[in-house]
Amino acid sequence: MRDEAATLENLVQELKRGTLVLSVLLCTESPSYGYALVAALRSRGMEAEQNTLYPLLRRLESQGLLESSWDTSDSRPRRYYVISEGGRRLRAALLAEWRRLNDAVTAMEAGK
Amino acid sequence: MRDEAATLENLVQELKRGTLVLSVLLCTESPSYGYALVAALRSRGMEAEQNTLYPLLRRLESQGLLESSWDTSDSRPRRYYVISEGGRRLRAALLAEWRRLNDAVTAMEAGK
Repeated sequence: MRDEAATLENLVQELKRGTLVLSVLLCTESPSYGYALVAALRSRGMEAEQNTLYPLLRRLESQGLLESSWDTSDSRPRRYYVISEGGRRLRAALLAEWRRLNDAVTAMEAGK
Repeated sequence: MRDEAATLENLVQELKRGTLVLSVLLCTESPSYGYALVAALRSRGMEAEQNTLYPLLRRLESQGLLESSWDTSDSRPRRYYVISEGGRRLRAALLAEWRRLNDAVTAMEAGK
């Protein structure tokens, strides 16, 4: 098989893309700013580059799933993101879907 | 929040897209033809339309992850797909990644 490593990398990226939104919604229960969120995700095993995460945070805010505010008390103002009520509802639904998919994968692995 | 249902639907589709390749690789340990595979996936909780699955089977074959052959012994010839050696290697790597992501989601859910 040619390009096996590249094919795997693409498929892994596809799996991760779907998981990243759920991960961000799980890590913004307390207000968090971009760089701290990258670190929080990494410490739980989700690698995300800043140039992937920052546009995602803005998109999730525009979809009403996150809310943001500036903290200007520090010399370096930072935008903090926190999950909204709508984000919580969507998170619960996504988490249920994740569990369902994991059950399906586990059943298929057992049956193969 | 506007369009909450549409946003959820998009995100769920994204999660499923990443899982479908892994599911197909798990369900082709024995040779299987398109429609039987749709039924096998459904019985394990993975809904996939024929017009999504058929192009995916052809793509996975072109990537060397599946092999196919025609069975013409029946009045209705059918193309059977079975996982290749390269497919098995990639499946093992994808499954490991899936477990890793599931552990990450579980850790984030516990910590939120």
